[in-house]
Amino acid sequence: MTEVKLQVNGMSCQHCVNSVEKALKEVGAKGNVDLKGSSVTVEFDESKISLDNVKEAIEEQGYDVK
Amino acid sequence: MTEVKLQVNGMSCQHCVNSVEKALKEVGAKGNVDLKGSSVTVEFDESKISLDNVKEAIEEQGYDVK
Repeated sequence: MTEVKLQVNGMSCQHCVNSVEKALKEVGAKGNVDLKGSSVTVEFDESKISLDNVKEAIEEQGYDVK
Repeated sequence: MTEVKLQVNGMSCQHCVNSVEKALKEVGAKGNVDLKGSSVTVEFDESKISLDNVKEAIEEQGYDVK
């Protein structure tokens, strides 16, 4: 498993946390959002999905991955 | 129809707007959230629901009505 910590702008409340974590789950990754730190720690299997897939899943929810 | 403008704290993003407007619809009121102004303008029929019903619907979503 690969673990990355991404800076993500625009997450402001628990709804945002839920939408990001759900989107990551749907692509087969496990996300853990730190709302105060504006970051998302993501665990995923690089043999199945790429870091780009992870970033896209977050961006599709309307947030900006740095 | 009665129209009231309530100050509501804690709404931070479009998800919050949606959850408040949906909750108001479910009690038979029509809500219009001003996110920047931290306010919700609500139209409702006092012969069917009370202002307390309106406030409760918002508070149940986790926001603080002033």
